[in-house]
Amino acid sequence: MGKCLGKLFGDGASREPKPPPPKPKPAVKARTIRLTRGVSRSEVIVVGQYLAVDLSNIAGDEAVSYEITPYPKDDVIVSMKDERPRATGNVAAGGMDSALAKKMVVYVYARSHSTEKDDKLVTFEFADANGRVVGQAELSLTAYFLSLDVDCDRDGVVEVNNPHKGTWEWGPRGHGAVLLVNNDNDDFDGTFDPDHKNSRIDGPLDVKDMSPMVVRMRGPLKLPVDYSIRLSTPPETAEKIGIFCLQPDVIKKDRRLEDLSKMLNEFLTKPDEETPDIGLNMEEMRDRLGNLVEDKLDKDEAPKQEDTPLKSETHVIGPNKANVVELEYRVDMRDNTATYEFAVEGLHYPDFMFDGQVEITLTLQRGRGSPIFEDTAVFQVAPWIMTPNTLPPLEAFVCEMEDGGNLSFIQELQEVTSAASVPLVIVPHTVNRGDRWMQDEIELGYSQVPGKDVMPVVLDSPRDRGLQNFPKMQLLGKDFGYVTRFNPDKEPNSLDSFGNLEVSPPVTANGKKYPLGRILIGSTSPTNQYGRRMMKVVRSFLKAQRVQSPVELYSDWLAVGHIDEFMTFIPARGGKGFRLLLASPDAFYAYLGWLQSQGHGSASLFEGKERYGTPAAVTVEELLQDSKLREENQVFQDDIDWNRDKLKRELGLTEGDIIDIPVLFKDEGGRGAGAFFPDMVNMIVLGRHLGIPKPFGPIVDGACAFESYVKSLLEPLGLSCNFIDDWSSYHLMMGEVHCGTNTLRKPFNYKWWHVEP
Amino acid sequence: MGKCLGKLFGDGASREPKPPPPKPKPAVKARTIRLTRGVSRSEVIVVGQYLAVDLSNIAGDEAVSYEITPYPKDDVIVSMKDERPRATGNVAAGGMDSALAKKMVVYVYARSHSTEKDDKLVTFEFADANGRVVGQAELSLTAYFLSLDVDCDRDGVVEVNNPHKGTWEWGPRGHGAVLLVNNDNDDFDGTFDPDHKNSRIDGPLDVKDMSPMVVRMRGPLKLPVDYSIRLSTPPETAEKIGIFCLQPDVIKKDRRLEDLSKMLNEFLTKPDEETPDIGLNMEEMRDRLGNLVEDKLDKDEAPKQEDTPLKSETHVIGPNKANVVELEYRVDMRDNTATYEFAVEGLHYPDFMFDGQVEITLTLQRGRGSPIFEDTAVFQVAPWIMTPNTLPPLEAFVCEMEDGGNLSFIQELQEVTSAASVPLVIVPHTVNRGDRWMQDEIELGYSQVPGKDVMPVVLDSPRDRGLQNFPKMQLLGKDFGYVTRFNPDKEPNSLDSFGNLEVSPPVTANGKKYPLGRILIGSTSPTNQYGRRMMKVVRSFLKAQRVQSPVELYSDWLAVGHIDEFMTFIPARGGKGFRLLLASPDAFYAYLGWLQSQGHGSASLFEGKERYGTPAAVTVEELLQDSKLREENQVFQDDIDWNRDKLKRELGLTEGDIIDIPVLFKDEGGRGAGAFFPDMVNMIVLGRHLGIPKPFGPIVDGACAFESYVKSLLEPLGLSCNFIDDWSSYHLMMGEVHCGTNTLRKPFNYKWWHVEP
Repeated sequence: MGKCLGKLFGDGASREPKPPPPKPKPAVKARTIRLTRGVSRSEVIVVGQYLAVDLSNIAGDEAVSYEITPYPKDDVIVSMKDERPRATGNVAAGGMDSALAKKMVVYVYARSHSTEKDDKLVTFEFADANGRVVGQAELSLTAYFLSLDVDCDRDGVVEVNNPHKGTWEWGPRGHGAVLLVNNDNDDFDGTFDPDHKNSRIDGPLDVKDMSPMVVRMRGPLKLPVDYSIRLSTPPETAEKIGIFCLQPDVIKKDRRLEDLSKMLNEFLTKPDEETPDIGLNMEEMRDRLGNLVEDKLDKDEAPKQEDTPLKSETHVIGPNKANVVELEYRVDMRDNTATYEFAVEGLHYPDFMFDGQVEITLTLQRGRGSPIFEDTAVFQVAPWIMTPNTLPPLEAFVCEMEDGGNLSFIQELQEVTSAASVPLVIVPHTVNRGDRWMQDEIELGYSQVPGKDVMPVVLDSPRDRGLQNFPKMQLLGKDFGYVTRFNPDKEPNSLDSFGNLEVSPPVTANGKKYPLGRILIGSTSPTNQYGRRMMKVVRSFLKAQRVQSPVELYSDWLAVGHIDEFMTFIPARGGKGFRLLLASPDAFYAYLGWLQSQGHGSASLFEGKERYGTPAAVTVEELLQDSKLREENQVFQDDIDWNRDKLKRELGLTEGDIIDIPVLFKDEGGRGAGAFFPDMVNMIVLGRHLGIPKPFGPIVDGACAFESYVKSLLEPLGLSCNFIDDWSSYHLMMGEVHCGTNTLRKPFNYKWWHVEP
Repeated sequence: MGKCLGKLFGDGASREPKPPPPKPKPAVKARTIRLTRGVSRSEVIVVGQYLAVDLSNIAGDEAVSYEITPYPKDDVIVSMKDERPRATGNVAAGGMDSALAKKMVVYVYARSHSTEKDDKLVTFEFADANGRVVGQAELSLTAYFLSLDVDCDRDGVVEVNNPHKGTWEWGPRGHGAVLLVNNDNDDFDGTFDPDHKNSRIDGPLDVKDMSPMVVRMRGPLKLPVDYSIRLSTPPETAEKIGIFCLQPDVIKKDRRLEDLSKMLNEFLTKPDEETPDIGLNMEEMRDRLGNLVEDKLDKDEAPKQEDTPLKSETHVIGPNKANVVELEYRVDMRDNTATYEFAVEGLHYPDFMFDGQVEITLTLQRGRGSPIFEDTAVFQVAPWIMTPNTLPPLEAFVCEMEDGGNLSFIQELQEVTSAASVPLVIVPHTVNRGDRWMQDEIELGYSQVPGKDVMPVVLDSPRDRGLQNFPKMQLLGKDFGYVTRFNPDKEPNSLDSFGNLEVSPPVTANGKKYPLGRILIGSTSPTNQYGRRMMKVVRSFLKAQRVQSPVELYSDWLAVGHIDEFMTFIPARGGKGFRLLLASPDAFYAYLGWLQSQGHGSASLFEGKERYGTPAAVTVEELLQDSKLREENQVFQDDIDWNRDKLKRELGLTEGDIIDIPVLFKDEGGRGAGAFFPDMVNMIVLGRHLGIPKPFGPIVDGACAFESYVKSLLEPLGLSCNFIDDWSSYHLMMGEVHCGTNTLRKPFNYKWWHVEP
C-alpha cells in the first residue's frame, strides 16, 4: 500500500460557485457504472449525480495497491466512501474470488459541466507487491448539467434547481409549485367553452393562467450519439394537465417518422417475424407506432378547425398528445447553455381518483435503454374554493322574470345592494328562461395560484332548468372559470341544487383548524336508505378539494330540502366574528306566546296577504291554538336540533355562536316541511347589509313585531336589517331571497396551500 | 338568588358500577331538547348522552331565581356548565329579550338506565323577586343504555362500550376492530366460489371467518311508541361488507310491508298527488318502496336455489340487501337487558376506491325523524399480504406435463423439497392443461385477523392460460381464500404474469420502516410511452393494501419481461439477514475472463446440450470473442443497474446487501432480452435450500465452474445450492425453475395492523 488516497481530496476552491457541490449523500443519486480491465470507457455524468464504480473487476489478481487520478483535479471528485462505513476497510484487492465477492466501490462526481475543450478523465491503476501495474482502466467523463426547474416557492419565479421541486408539502412551512385549472375563456370564439377544453394557447391572456416550467441544460455543444433528452409524465397524469412549449422547435421530430409512416400498413398486416428492419427494436417500434396511431386518431377525431399536431400552439404533452416528448439538445455556443421555457396548465381539479399532484420528469437516456438521469418536478393543481357569507361581496345576481312579477322585489333588493355598494347583475328572461332560482343553479367560488390574480370560478350544478346556460353564457369568460360535475346516468333531485351547498366561516373543531371553513351539504337522514342525497360525483368533487372538508347535514326533512332553508352565517361583532342563524319553530312559539302574554293575542299576521287566492291573515291566538301545526313543528325543531348539535360538534361552535330566528314550517302534503311564512334565515348577506324576507308579522306599536325582534337580535351585532317583500314572487313558490339571488365574494386572504388538510 | 345549585351535585356512590359515568365533555355528545313553559315533557335519554336544555323559554319575564330538582338524585345529574365558562354567569333571567337572546343552557344526564319502577324526573322552577313561581316545567326521562360493541383491542373479545370503537388507528399503539375478507369456501358445493360470493352463512366454519359485533340494550321493557332502533352503514359501505344476525328474529319486519306490496303497482302508475294514504309520508314511502323494489330485484336476479331474503342465514345488511335494518327492542324481563349478536364479513379488500374502513352505526330515532342517539363502530378490512422468500416455506407447487417431458425436473425438484421438508404438490395435466408456468398464474399470500388462524389467500393473475382454473379448483377451499383482479376490457400482456410480482424482505428505506417488505412490480421504462405495464386494476389493488407499499421496477427490456428473470432474495447469515441476488452479465464476463486467464479458454460450456436440434456447446474463448453479444449485454447490464440503483434507494440497500450472479442474456430477435443459458437467479428458495437452474458451465477440475463459483458465493451464507436441470423442460421455453414453481409460505410474525403506512 505505497500510495494512499489522501492526496486525492484537494481542498482547492471551486472555480464556479454554481451549481453548489452536491452534499455527500452518495446513496441517493448514485448510478452504477461498469469498467472493464484495460479498457477506456466514456460515460456521461450529470452534475449532481454520483457514479458508483466497482473496482473489483479491474483490480487484477495480484493487486495490492492502487492509485486513482482525476482530471481536472478540482473538478472531478473521487470518494472511497461506501454507503456503509464498514465496507471501506476492504481497500486491498486480494484473490479473484474475494475481489468479486467483496466489492470495492468508489464514487465519482463532477463539480461542473464539460465544454468541448475541457473533458474530464479518471484513471485507475492497480499494482502488485513489486509496484508492477497489474490492472488499469480509464473513465472519460462528459459532464452535463440538466435541470427541470419549476416555480417552487410559489413566488412566480422559476428558480435554478430548487432542492424542493421534487416534493410537495401542505402547510404554512410547505413548499411546491402550483397549477391553475385553466378553465376560463380568454378568446371569445362563440363556443362558450373553457380554454382547457382545447389544446391550444388561446392568446397571451391564456398563457398568463399557466405555470412556468423551465428546462435548463449546460454542457458541450453536442450530446454523444444515441443519447436523448425526454420530458415525460405518467400516462394517467397526461390526462390531467397540458404542457405547451414556448420554443416549439426544440421538440424533436423523429427523422425515422416518415419511413415508419410508409411502413405502417405493411407492418400491421405482417406476422411479427417479418417485421421490416428499420433500425428499431420491437420496443421502439411499439413506441413510434403508438405515436403514429395516436397522431392519426388525433387527426381523425379532432374538429376540422383544430390545428395539426406538433405546431407551436398545441400541447406537447396532454390528453390528446403523448405523455413523453423528446427535446433537442441545442446549447448556445457562447456559454454552453440552453434554456427552454414551457407553460403548464391544469385541466382537472383534484377529484375522486386524482389527488391533484402531478410529476413531470426530465430524463437523459442512452438509446432505448434505461434512464441514466432523472430530474422530477412536482405540481399541485389548485383546488376550487367556496366563499362564506363572511367574505365581502363583489357582485350580486338576480333573475328578471318575463312577466315582471318580481320587479318590485328587484327594486327592494337593489336598495340593499346599493347600500352595500355591490353591483347587482340582473339576468334577463332570455337567459334565465323563466327560472328564478339563481342560488340553485350555481355556486360561485375561486381558484388561486401565487403571484397571479385570483380566478373566480363558477361550479355549475347538475340541476338542469331554465338557468342551465347562464353560467357558460354570462359568467365564463376572460379570467372567469367554469367547472361542472354531474352524473349523466342519474336524474338530479332537489338536493342537487346549490341552495343546498354552503360553506362555513373559518372555524376550529376538535383541535383541527379549518382556515377556509367547512363545506356544508344537505343530505338524507343516516338511517333512511332511500332518501335524497346530493349526487356522489359532486360530493366526491367537493371532498377532493381537501381544503374545506365537507360536513353532511340533514335537509331531506324539508320538501325542497336545501340547507339554506334553516341556516345561514352572518358576519358579526364579538365572539368568533360571525354567528350561525338557525330557523327555530321553538323561538317562533316562544315569541308568539310572549306577544299573547303582552296582550297582542288578537294581532293579525300576514294581514292583506293571500295564498293562492285565499286570505292568509291569522291572529296570534289562532296560530297558538293550532295544535296540529305545533306538533308538526316540534318534529321539525328536532330535525333542526340534530343539525344544530352536529354543527356544534363539526364546526366547534357553542350556544353563544348561535342565534335562533323565529321561523314556522308546515307540512307540504306529506312531502316534507316548507316555510309557513317568509323564512327569515333565507337571506342575502352583503357585508353588514342583510336582505331578509319580509315576514309580515303582527303589527305591534306600529311595526312588524317579527322585524323588530330580529332587529333587536342582529343590530347590536353591527348589522343592518332590510326586509324585502318576496311573498308572491318567491315565498309562495317555496323559495325566498337567498334562493333567488347569488353572490360573488372576495377570496380569502388565507392561502389554500397553507392549509394542513 | 335564594336557592343555589350546589346542592344538586350529590357525591353519593353510583349504585351500578357499569357503564362508567361519562366524562364531563358536554359538547361532544350533547343533544338539544326543548321544554315548554308549564308543560311536562317525556324524553328518552341514552346513558352516556347529555341533553342540552335551554331554560330561557320557561323562565318567564320576572324570574330572578330558579331551582332544578333531579330524581333520583344520584342518578340524574344536572350541570350548569355551558361549553364556555363565560356563559355561566348568566343565571338570572331578565327581560324577555335578553332571556331569548342570552341562553341559559343546562345539561342533564343519567347515570343508569330506567326500569318500569324507576322513572327519572327533573323539575324546573323559576321564581320572581317575591319567591312566587313564575315559570316551571317538568322533564320526565326514560333512560336506555344502547351500545354497539365490537372487538376493539383485537383480542377476539367483544367489550362493553370500548371507548375506542368509533375510530381506527394504525401502528403499534393503534386500535380498532378488523374484518377478514371471507373469500375461502367452507362448504364444497361444486361452485368453486368463495363464501362471500353468496350472502349465506356457509355453515359453522364460515362464521368462524367473521368478526363478532354485539348490540347491547338495557332499559324498561318497552320502547316508547314511535321510537325505533336501527342498524346502518353508508350505502357505499354496504357493497363492501355483509352483516349476519345470529338471532334473526330480532330483525324487525315491517307490519305495513304487505299493504305496501299490494299498493306498489298502483302507486307507481299514479302521479305524486294521488299517492294512496297508508299512514306514511313521502319519505317513508320512498324508504319502504325502495326496500320492496330491492327485494323484488333480489328475487328476480338471484339464482333459484338462493334462499329468500330475511331468512336467518342471509345478510341483513349487504350488497344485495339494505344498508339499514330495524331491530326489535326486546329486553329480558329479569334483568332488563338484551344482547344481539352479529357476524360481520368483509367482501372486498381495500382497493382503489375503498380504503377498507367501514362504519356501522346503531341509531335510536323517533318516528321518521332525526336520530336522537348514534353509536358507531369502525372496522378495518384486513389487507392481502405477500410473503417474501425469507419466510419459511409450507408447500411447493409444480405442474406435471402430459408428455412426461418434465418428469426428471420434478424428480430433481423433489430432492430439494424433501431436503427442505416441504411437501411438493404436483398439479396434474388435467388441471394445468399444458401450462407449466406455475409462478405466473398465481401469487400466494395471506390475510389475518387477531385471534384467528391466518387465512392463506391466492391472488389469481389476469393471465388466462392453461392454469386458469387451478386456483379455484385446487387452492380455494376451507380456510383457503381466493381473490382476483383483472380488467375485462383489456388483453393481458406478459407483464401481468406474477413472475413479475415479488416482495422484498422487511426493510427500512429513507427513514421509513417496511416491516412486511415492499411489493416489487416490473414495468416499462418511464420514458417509453407505449411499453408494457401490469394492468392498472392489479397495481391499484396492490397499492391499496397499504402495508407493503409497491415499487415499480423496469422489466420491459426483457422479452418475457418478468422481474424474476434478473432478481431474487435469499435468506442469509449476517447483514440484514438476506441478500438480493442480481443477474449480472458483467459478473459473467469478469468470471469468463478469469477462467481464460487461468488457462481454461478452450473449456466448453453447454457440452452435450442442444438448442432446437443444434448443438449448444461453445468455448470460453468463443464467447469472450463474440463482441456483438458483449455489446448487447452491456445494455442489458445498464438496464439491470438502473433497477439496482432504484432497489438500493427504495429498499435502503447497500452494495453489501447485493450479490451479482453471472448471467448472460441475448437479444430475442428484437423482442428484448432472454437468458442465454439457464438463468441462475430464477431459483426456488425453500428456507436455506435453493433450487437453482443448472447452468451447464465449463468443466474445471471435474466440476461445473459456474456451480462452483455460485456455491463459493452462497454457501458461506449458510445456504445449500442444488442445481436442477431445466434446460429442455423450461429454459428453452424462456423460463426456469422459479417460473415453473410456486411456494406457499408462513405468514409474517409481524402483524399488519402494527404497520404505520
